[in-house]
Amino acid sequence: MSITQDMVDTYPGNLAPLPLGLFVQCIDACLACGQGCTACADACLAEEELERLTRCIRLNLDCADICAATARVLSRQTDTDLRVTIAQLRACAAACEISAIECESHRHTHCQTCAEACRRCQKACEELLAALG
Amino acid sequence: MSITQDMVDTYPGNLAPLPLGLFVQCIDACLACGQGCTACADACLAEEELERLTRCIRLNLDCADICAATARVLSRQTDTDLRVTIAQLRACAAACEISAIECESHRHTHCQTCAEACRRCQKACEELLAALG
Amino acid sequence: MSITQDMVDTYPGNLAPLPLGLFVQCIDACLACGQGCTACADACLAEEELERLTRCIRLNLDCADICAATARVLSRQTDTDLRVTIAQLRACAAACEISAIECESHRHTHCQTCAEACRRCQKACEELLAALG
Amino acid sequence: MSITQDMVDTYPGNLAPLPLGLFVQCIDACLACGQGCTACADACLAEEELERLTRCIRLNLDCADICAATARVLSRQTDTDLRVTIAQLRACAAACEISAIECESHRHTHCQTCAEACRRCQKACEELLAALG
Repeated sequence: MSITQDMVDTYPGNLAPLPLGLFVQCIDACLACGQGCTACADACLAEEELERLTRCIRLNLDCADICAATARVLSRQTDTDLRVTIAQLRACAAACEISAIECESHRHTHCQTCAEACRRCQKACEELLAALG
Repeated sequence: MSITQDMVDTYPGNLAPLPLGLFVQCIDACLACGQGCTACADACLAEEELERLTRCIRLNLDCADICAATARVLSRQTDTDLRVTIAQLRACAAACEISAIECESHRHTHCQTCAEACRRCQKACEELLAALG
Repeated sequence: MSITQDMVDTYPGNLAPLPLGLFVQCIDACLACGQGCTACADACLAEEELERLTRCIRLNLDCADICAATARVLSRQTDTDLRVTIAQLRACAAACEISAIECESHRHTHCQTCAEACRRCQKACEELLAALG
Repeated sequence: MSITQDMVDTYPGNLAPLPLGLFVQCIDACLACGQGCTACADACLAEEELERLTRCIRLNLDCADICAATARVLSRQTDTDLRVTIAQLRACAAACEISAIECESHRHTHCQTCAEACRRCQKACEELLAALG
C-alpha cells in the first residue's frame, strides 16, 4: 500500500545525486518499525510479566518517535541539508539497534517480530548513511 | 514491508469484539497517506507555480500530522476507549477528504498520487467507523 | 519560554476573523498536556502497582499523540479549513477528558498533575470550539 | 503553563545521577522551538517572496519534527539508555543550528523570532550533551 516510491518518482525537482532507492527503502523501514514499536510497547502492557518489560516499553516508545521523525525528514527532497539527514539517521540507527537488542531478549512473539523490524530499519539507516558518505 | 497484521496477530490480550482486519487496513492507509502528504507538500515547494499551492501544502501538512496520530491510536489495543478512537477517526476522515479534494484539483502527478492515498485513507476510516457503530 | 503568541503576532497574512487569543491558549495547553501525558505514562512504568495503571498509560499515550497533532494544526494560519480544525479539536477535547478522568482516579502526584493539564487542555479546546461556532 | 518541572519532581523512580534541571530546560526549549518552526514554515507560505523561502520552510519542518521527537525522548525517565538520548540530542542540536542560520538570513520578524527559539534549543541541547559527557 506504500506510495513512497511513487512520490519520489513524481518529485518535480532535481534529485540526481542522491541514492533515491535507499531513501525509499529507509522511509518504508522507518514507518514499519515505528508502527511495530508502538504496537509492541502496547502488547507488553498486556503481558503478565509486565514489570519485566518496562525497559522494552520505554525503548520502543523512543524508537517509535525517532523513526517517525526520520521518515518525515527523509520524505522531503526540497533543499535537503544532508547534515540534518545524517544526524537524524545516526540517531535512528542507534535507537533501532538498542530496541532490537532489548526485544530480542524477550520470548514474546510480538517482541521477536518487532526486533526484526528494528533490525531492518537499523540496516536501512546504515546503508543510507554509508551511501551518503 | 508492513508488520501491522503480524503485530495484531501476536497481541497477547483479548481482542475478540473488534474488527481487527479493518484496524490493520486503516493503520496502513494512515501511514501511507501521512507519508504521501508529507512528500506532496514538499514536492509542491519545488513547483514553479508555488504560490497557487499554499492551500495544498497547508492541508497536506495537517493531514500528515492527523494521520500519524490516528495510526498511533489504532495501533494500541490495551484498554481501548472507543470514544477516543472514534473521535480521532472522524478527524482523520475529514482531513483526508479535504486534502483529497484539494489535491484532485491540481494537475501535478504527485498531487494525483497523494489524492488517491487520501481517498483510500478516508475510506478506511469511514469503514472502520461504520463497523464500530 | 513559549513563543506561540509572538509567532501569531508576526504572521504576515490576514487573520482578522479568528479568535487568535484562544488559538494561542489552546496551542500552549496542547503542548503542556502532551508533555505531561508522555511523562505520566512513563512515571506509571516506575510505579509498584504497574499492572493497575495500564489503562492510564494507554490513554496518556493516545492523548499525547492527539495533543501533538492538534498543536500542529492550530499553529498553522495559512488557508485554514475550519472543518479540519474543528474535527481535530473535538478529538482532542475527548481524549483530554477521558485521560483526565482516568488520571483523577489514581492517587499518584504525577497522575494528579497530569489530570490538571488534561482538564486545562480540554477546556481550551472547548472554548475554542465554542468561539468557532 | 509548562508542567515539565512538576512532572520531573513527581517521578516515582530514582533519578539521582541525571542533570534534571537541564532535562527540563531542554524539553521546554524543544517544545517552543518545534512550535515556532511549525508556525514559521506556515508564515513563510503567506509571504510574497515565497519562492525564496523554500529552504527555510523545509528546514523548519525538519526541525519541528526532530524537536518533537527529542522532547518525547527527554520526557521519559524510566530505564533511560543514554546512547539514544545523546544521539537524538546531537540530531536536534544540528537541526536547530541549521534552521537558525537559515532563519537569521531572512528579514521577516517571524524568521527572527523562530531563529531565537532555534538558538535557545540548540544551546539547551549542547548544554545537556556536555553534562551527559
